[in-house]
Amino acid sequence: MISPASPLVFFLSDYGLLDEFVGVCHAVIAGICPEAKVIDLTHGVGRHDVLAGAVILAGAAAYLPAGVQLAVVDPDVGAARRAVAIRAGNGRLLVGPDNGLLWPAAVACGGAIEAVDIARSRFRLQPVSATFHGRDIFAPVAAHLAAGVPLADAGDPIAADELVRLELPRARVQDGGVLAHVVYVDRFGNVQLDAVHDDLAAAGLRLGRPLVLQDAQGRHHDGHYVRTFADVRRGELLVYEDAQGRIAVAVSQGDAAERLGLAVQDELAIGPA
Amino acid sequence: MISPASPLVFFLSDYGLLDEFVGVCHAVIAGICPEAKVIDLTHGVGRHDVLAGAVILAGAAAYLPAGVQLAVVDPDVGAARRAVAIRAGNGRLLVGPDNGLLWPAAVACGGAIEAVDIARSRFRLQPVSATFHGRDIFAPVAAHLAAGVPLADAGDPIAADELVRLELPRARVQDGGVLAHVVYVDRFGNVQLDAVHDDLAAAGLRLGRPLVLQDAQGRHHDGHYVRTFADVRRGELLVYEDAQGRIAVAVSQGDAAERLGLAVQDELAIGPA
Amino acid sequence: MISPASPLVFFLSDYGLLDEFVGVCHAVIAGICPEAKVIDLTHGVGRHDVLAGAVILAGAAAYLPAGVQLAVVDPDVGAARRAVAIRAGNGRLLVGPDNGLLWPAAVACGGAIEAVDIARSRFRLQPVSATFHGRDIFAPVAAHLAAGVPLADAGDPIAADELVRLELPRARVQDGGVLAHVVYVDRFGNVQLDAVHDDLAAAGLRLGRPLVLQDAQGRHHDGHYVRTFADVRRGELLVYEDAQGRIAVAVSQGDAAERLGLAVQDELAIGPA
Repeated sequence: MISPASPLVFFLSDYGLLDEFVGVCHAVIAGICPEAKVIDLTHGVGRHDVLAGAVILAGAAAYLPAGVQLAVVDPDVGAARRAVAIRAGNGRLLVGPDNGLLWPAAVACGGAIEAVDIARSRFRLQPVSATFHGRDIFAPVAAHLAAGVPLADAGDPIAADELVRLELPRARVQDGGVLAHVVYVDRFGNVQLDAVHDDLAAAGLRLGRPLVLQDAQGRHHDGHYVRTFADVRRGELLVYEDAQGRIAVAVSQGDAAERLGLAVQDELAIGPA
Repeated sequence: MISPASPLVFFLSDYGLLDEFVGVCHAVIAGICPEAKVIDLTHGVGRHDVLAGAVILAGAAAYLPAGVQLAVVDPDVGAARRAVAIRAGNGRLLVGPDNGLLWPAAVACGGAIEAVDIARSRFRLQPVSATFHGRDIFAPVAAHLAAGVPLADAGDPIAADELVRLELPRARVQDGGVLAHVVYVDRFGNVQLDAVHDDLAAAGLRLGRPLVLQDAQGRHHDGHYVRTFADVRRGELLVYEDAQGRIAVAVSQGDAAERLGLAVQDELAIGPA
Repeated sequence: MISPASPLVFFLSDYGLLDEFVGVCHAVIAGICPEAKVIDLTHGVGRHDVLAGAVILAGAAAYLPAGVQLAVVDPDVGAARRAVAIRAGNGRLLVGPDNGLLWPAAVACGGAIEAVDIARSRFRLQPVSATFHGRDIFAPVAAHLAAGVPLADAGDPIAADELVRLELPRARVQDGGVLAHVVYVDRFGNVQLDAVHDDLAAAGLRLGRPLVLQDAQGRHHDGHYVRTFADVRRGELLVYEDAQGRIAVAVSQGDAAERLGLAVQDELAIGPA
């Protein structure tokens, strides 16, 4: 599954880069599997925001070559939640807390085929701290998997259908429009929705045409359904298919989340002008 | 040009590290050229600040060993601007949008010798999104160049003298002083100017002597022209030659940009006390 | 000491990631020792906060495999402070300014065994700038050490007992409680103290029991001494042994530093409820 030459570990967390948490996990991996290359997907996930972490990991899945996906957004560290490692249909391995964080990525990778509970993995660092399982459980297990250890050796088998699921929301086509939800806001204030182009098409909304957005407070905003930022004037609102194939809302050279007062999970209705 | 053993890619952008944009570009490169080492120069360039990106890349050029310089500050992504790859006089390769971002670095590397338009490169990921050419065009082309593919194979040839130029501003020696401009402000509030030591010398300003700075609002500030921070007291203003060989203004243990109300492109006059 | 296959350099600084300082140091290392793997411990140390850098580096020491520890928090760059490279008892090498930053880590690694002054190292980049010794002295020396150069070749020998020491503060057990000091505040507002479990035990404070904290302003705060965040309710104050084996104070899903108005070096008294 993983080439012995240069195994890859993709690492996502909500640890941020101000402290040494991420660096220490890198060090632990280097100590166990010196030949591994660790690629930081991002450590800027909002603190404890499992949904955002899940959306990012699943959205990136199509661009990640074979390797181990190590993800830690873990509000219940030290409590009863399981720690797991999963093999997906396309051979990708995923390691992290069993709180739904890994589920959409596993689905995007062909579904969870095999899973083990790694809370008491023989690869964990002992003593295991109560608060930093990234260092003590997840990173060492990911490193051993990167080194080629079989998944079954990393923990106790569990049925893949016992894993905690996280179903991403899904936009609805309704009377003359689409009722969508915010799934992600990036650092530019671009707002990603749970809708795709086919939803807008099914509602009769056409590329190049004006739209009206109704936010959760009932306020209306004019915009255009276009291909890219350059298709509208500075300061104008655009609706477009983003780089992950989802419908997004942005303000050219501005901040759409601020303008529309939107946060993750908020509703947004899109209709014709 | 590039050793097959461990090719280097230097990566600069305005993507920030809060989202997964940078991580996904790393993943794309690892999938194409697993042996490449990608070094992040910085992803903290101000959003769409092509000038700041150009200043940083050109200033770093002397310290970058042979490799590919991948730079993405791209306010016009998806619009008509060209995407290019360039070979410079000293063999360095540069990849990014043709909006001036690469120009000063190419000059610092001996000038642009050969260039190709990579918008429709056979190495691009398809479909190309309208908003994330870092992932879909620039990173894959940089990875192929790192892997040793000839530049001519990466796109359609264009004349090097058709590339968009960005001339950095240049201080003027005038009556008893120097009229400079801010080219960069770092995270400490240190203010880099477009002047060099020879400009101050030509204006009769000597190391170790007091100076007066006049900011864009006409306010005056006392300072000293010294070698380093330790040469003034905490809270005092200093003018010094910075690590890139440019004249800079700082406040010892403080923030000069805030004290003087300076931002990029602002004018600052330096004269004798 | 260091395997020629894939030498490791662990890099900590207060440079931040907004500018290119860290990236340029990586580039310098790659030019000198292409086979080195550089792991960023963190570059988010507070500006000029030597104590915080020292605490982080020493706290990480147990998790760092063999390699070079490159640390730069250097308020007196360009002034008279020494620049040093140190070999510790367990073979780890440390490179940085001689301002105490390296001392606790060297102690954690078995004590400083051998040291050289590297200000005029033959490996420095010339001309040495007055303000960026990370690039011009520390990174090149670290890279040569990673490449296997003997420490004695990197500079002029100095007696290990001449190195600047930084003794971390130490909590006192006193009448019915513990008088501790803040040594670190992480980005979540969790407050690390200079106390360990044995201090609390010696003061009669037991796991699972309520506590009262008295902050520097004399205000009292109720909390519990527990194993982990999940042992208290959202918004409640907890005292716990953190992942480095130190006693820390946190608010479940909140910010303890803000709630208690605590900063590094502040006093905090812990007693029974």
